Amino acid sequence: MREANPRAAVARPDLPRRLVAELVGTALLLAAVVGSGIMGDRLAGGNVAVALLANTIATGAALVALILTFGPVSGAHLNPAVTLADAWEGGLPWREAGAYALAQVTGAFLGVGLGDFMFGEPLFQASRTAREGLPLLVSEFVATFGLLAVIWACARRRADVVPFAVAAWIVAAYWFTASTSFANPAVTLARAATDTFAGIRPADAPGFVAAQLLGAAAATALFSWLIPALPARAADVVVPQDAAVTTEGRRA
Amino acid sequence: MREANPRAAVARPDLPRRLVAELVGTALLLAAVVGSGIMGDRLAGGNVAVALLANTIATGAALVALILTFGPVSGAHLNPAVTLADAWEGGLPWREAGAYALAQVTGAFLGVGLGDFMFGEPLFQASRTAREGLPLLVSEFVATFGLLAVIWACARRRADVVPFAVAAWIVAAYWFTASTSFANPAVTLARAATDTFAGIRPADAPGFVAAQLLGAAAATALFSWLIPALPARAADVVVPQDAAVTTEGRRA
Amino acid sequence: MREANPRAAVARPDLPRRLVAELVGTALLLAAVVGSGIMGDRLAGGNVAVALLANTIATGAALVALILTFGPVSGAHLNPAVTLADAWEGGLPWREAGAYALAQVTGAFLGVGLGDFMFGEPLFQASRTAREGLPLLVSEFVATFGLLAVIWACARRRADVVPFAVAAWIVAAYWFTASTSFANPAVTLARAATDTFAGIRPADAPGFVAAQLLGAAAATALFSWLIPALPARAADVVVPQDAAVTTEGRRA
Amino acid sequence: MREANPRAAVARPDLPRRLVAELVGTALLLAAVVGSGIMGDRLAGGNVAVALLANTIATGAALVALILTFGPVSGAHLNPAVTLADAWEGGLPWREAGAYALAQVTGAFLGVGLGDFMFGEPLFQASRTAREGLPLLVSEFVATFGLLAVIWACARRRADVVPFAVAAWIVAAYWFTASTSFANPAVTLARAATDTFAGIRPADAPGFVAAQLLGAAAATALFSWLIPALPARAADVVVPQDAAVTTEGRRA
Repeated sequence: MREANPRAAVARPDLPRRLVAELVGTALLLAAVVGSGIMGDRLAGGNVAVALLANTIATGAALVALILTFGPVSGAHLNPAVTLADAWEGGLPWREAGAYALAQVTGAFLGVGLGDFMFGEPLFQASRTAREGLPLLVSEFVATFGLLAVIWACARRRADVVPFAVAAWIVAAYWFTASTSFANPAVTLARAATDTFAGIRPADAPGFVAAQLLGAAAATALFSWLIPALPARAADVVVPQDAAVTTEGRRA
Repeated sequence: MREANPRAAVARPDLPRRLVAELVGTALLLAAVVGSGIMGDRLAGGNVAVALLANTIATGAALVALILTFGPVSGAHLNPAVTLADAWEGGLPWREAGAYALAQVTGAFLGVGLGDFMFGEPLFQASRTAREGLPLLVSEFVATFGLLAVIWACARRRADVVPFAVAAWIVAAYWFTASTSFANPAVTLARAATDTFAGIRPADAPGFVAAQLLGAAAATALFSWLIPALPARAADVVVPQDAAVTTEGRRA
Repeated sequence: MREANPRAAVARPDLPRRLVAELVGTALLLAAVVGSGIMGDRLAGGNVAVALLANTIATGAALVALILTFGPVSGAHLNPAVTLADAWEGGLPWREAGAYALAQVTGAFLGVGLGDFMFGEPLFQASRTAREGLPLLVSEFVATFGLLAVIWACARRRADVVPFAVAAWIVAAYWFTASTSFANPAVTLARAATDTFAGIRPADAPGFVAAQLLGAAAATALFSWLIPALPARAADVVVPQDAAVTTEGRRA
Repeated sequence: MREANPRAAVARPDLPRRLVAELVGTALLLAAVVGSGIMGDRLAGGNVAVALLANTIATGAALVALILTFGPVSGAHLNPAVTLADAWEGGLPWREAGAYALAQVTGAFLGVGLGDFMFGEPLFQASRTAREGLPLLVSEFVATFGLLAVIWACARRRADVVPFAVAAWIVAAYWFTASTSFANPAVTLARAATDTFAGIRPADAPGFVAAQLLGAAAATALFSWLIPALPARAADVVVPQDAAVTTEGRRA
C-alpha cells in the first residue's frame, strides 16, 4: 500500500488536483475523438477509410500529448478500466478509484459536448449507430486486453515510453478490431451521446463496457504471471510522480 | 528572475542569435504550413481530407524538426503566445519578449512569401477564406489552451519530449478543432497574407488572436495550480539551454 | 554461451513464460496484419493505396506496441528468422529456438483466426492471392535482410530504439518491396490461411520463406563483419532482460 | 583534427567497413524512394496526393531505420552534401570524403536498379520527368538548408534524436517544397536513371545539385555562428562512434 511509503505520499499531488487532471484530460481526449470523426467524415467525400485514417491519427496524437501532459499530475489514466485494474493491484485506494472514474465519465461527456459544439452539432444527442454482435464484443475484449498488457509491461521496464506505446496500440486497434477499439468505459458511455461518426447506440454500450472490463482483467492476470514483480501502482506508470519532489527530478 | 542566476546568464546565447533563430525557425514553419497546403490542395483531386492529411503530416513533422533544431538556441517558441506566457511567468524579460514577438511575426511573413514563391503563387495576397463564428473562436481557445498545457506540463518533468508532444498536439488539433488549429498569433497574421489552402480572411484574424491569448492564459493559470513548482522559464523548456556551457552537455 | 553467465541465467524469465509471450505476441501481430487488411479493404472504396496505407500504419503501430510489451519477457522475436539468427550467433540454445519457432507459428495461426473472426470471415481458408516470381522473391530477401540488419545494428548501440527501428523498417518495406514485405516465416505460413487482403496462396509460401531465411543469413554475416563485437544474444536486443533483476532496473 | 585524438581514432571503424555501410545504406534508401514511388503510383488510382503520401511515409520510415542501422558504422551520411559539410568543418579528412561520396553515388545507382527490378521496371532508364525553374531550385536550396541545419543543431545537443529529426524534416519537405525535396546529390543523380514516379530528367539534375550544395553551405555557415562550439565531426553526429570502444557502450 502506498500509504506506507511516506516519500510517495508526499510526491503525489493531492486528490483535487488529480481529479481535475483526469477530468480535463478525458474531456480533451473525447473532444479529439468526436471532433476528428466529424471533420474526417465531412471532408472525406464518402471514402470512409480516409475519414477513419484522420480519426486514427488525431486520436493517437492526442493520446501522446495528453498522457505526457496529465501523466505527471494524475497518472493520466483517462480510462476507468485502467483505474480499476490499478486499484485491484493495490496502486490506488478504492475510494480514490471511484472518484477517478467519476471524474473520467464527467470529463468524457463534457468533451463530447465540446467536440459537438465546435462543429455546430447538437451538444448531446443519442447515437443511432448500431455496434453489436459477438465479433464486436470480442473486438473490445482484444482491444482492452492489449491496452492493459501494454500498460502493465511498459510500467515495469520503460515507463517513459508508455505514452507512445499506448498511442501505438490504439492506432493499430482502430484498424484491426471490428469495433474500431473503444477500449474505455468512459469513452463508450460518452460516445453514446453524440449522433456523429464516433457514436454508438446507447443500447450497445453496456456490452462494450462488459467486454472491456473482461479484457482488462485478463491482461492484468496474465501479466501478474508473466512479469511477477508487477509494480503496485499504475498511477505512476505513465510518468513517475515521485520525480516531482526530487531535486534532480528531470528524467533523461 | 534569471538575471540573478549567473550560470543561466552565461548559458543563454546572446539576444541577436536568439532572434535570428526565432525568425528563421518561424519562417520555415510558415513555409511548411503554407507550402504543404498548396501541394496537398493541388494533388488531392478535390478530396479535402487527403489534402488536410498531407498538411497535417507536414506541419507535425516540421514542428518536430524545427523545435529540435532551434530549441538549443532560442527555446524555439516560434509563437508569441508562448513567449507572452513565458514572460508572464518570469522566464523572459518583457523587453526581450517584445523582440521575440517581432522576430516571430517578421519570420512568419517571410515564410509565407517563401512558401508562395516555391509554388508560383503571388508572394503576398489577402486571403479570402472566411473563418468566423463562435465555434471557431472556441476552437482556437481549445487549441491554444492545449498547446500551452502541453508545454507547461512537459517542461517540468520531461523537457526532452516537448518537440514530440507539441507536434502531437498540433497534429490532433488540426483535425478535432473546427478552425484546424492555428494556435499561434504570428501564424494567424501571416496566413492572412496568402490566398491559398492555409489562408484566413484578414478580418477574421483578430478574433483568432484574441481567442488564442485567452486559451494560453487559461492554461498557464491552470497549470500554475496543477503543478505548483512550475519552472520559471519556458525558454528552457524545449531544450535546456544551460546544457550549452557544461562540458558534458550531451543529453541522453 | 549464456549458460556461462550466471547473472543472465537468473535474469531471463523461465521458458514457459517466454513461450507464452511469443505465442500471444505473434497472435496479436497477425490479428493486426489480417484485421487491418480486411478493414482497409472494406472501407477504401476500391482505392488499394488507401487500404495499404491503413494496413501499413496498423502494422507499424502494432509492432511498436507489441515489441515494447513482450520484449521484456521473451525478447519479442515474433519471427522464426530472428530466432534462428539469434541461435546461430549463440544467443539462444538451439533447443529453445525450436520451441520459440513452434510458439510463433502456433500464435500466428491463432492470430489469423482471431482477425478473421472479428470481421466475420471464415476462421481459416486457403488464400487465392498469387504472389510469385523472382522480383517478389528478391523483395522478400531485401525485406528480411534489412530487418535483421536493423536488429543486429541497433542491438549493439541503442537497444532502446529497436521497437521503433523495426517498425520503421517494416513500414517502409510494406511500400518499397513488391511483395509488401512479409519478412517473417511464421507470418507467411499463417497468412496462407486467410483468403482476405493479407493472404498468400499456400503454393507461394515456401519460396517466400526460403528467400527470407537467405536474407536473414546475409544480414547476419554482413553485420558480423561490419560490427565485429556483435552481441551474442538477440533475445536481449529488444529490451535487455537483465534489467529484470537489477533493483535500479528502470531504463531512462 | 580527429587524427590528433587517439581515442576517436581507435573508435571509428576502418574505412572499408565505413564505405560498405555508406554504399549499402544509400542503396537501400534509393530502393525505398524509387520502389515506394512505383507502388504508390500504381495503387493510388490516379490520386497523386495519395501516392505521394505513401512515398513520404516510406521514405521517412526508411531514413529512421537506415540512420539507426548504419550510423554506428559510418555516421550514416548517405548524402554527399552532408559528407562535404563534414569535411569542410574538419570532421572527415578530404581523402575519405571523396571515398564516401563515391560509395554513396555507387550505392544510389545500385538502389535504383534494385527498386526498379523488384517492380519489373527496366533497371536503368533515363527519366523524362521535367523538374525545372527557379521555384524548384529555391525549393532544393531550402530543403538542403533545413537538412543541414537539423544535423548541425542536433549534433551538438541531442545526437540521439538525429535519425528522427532528419526523417521529420524530409517528411515535411516532401510536401512543402515544390521539388518534393531531393536534398541529396547522390539521390538526385541516381533518380535521373529511373523513368518512374521518383525520376528527374538528367538535364535538370545539375541545377538541383548546385542548389543543394549552396543550401548546405548556407546552413553550415549560419550554425557556425548560431552555435559557435559546433562539434568538429558530423561523422559522429548520428550515433557517437566512440561508444563502440567503451565497455558500457549502451546508450540510454
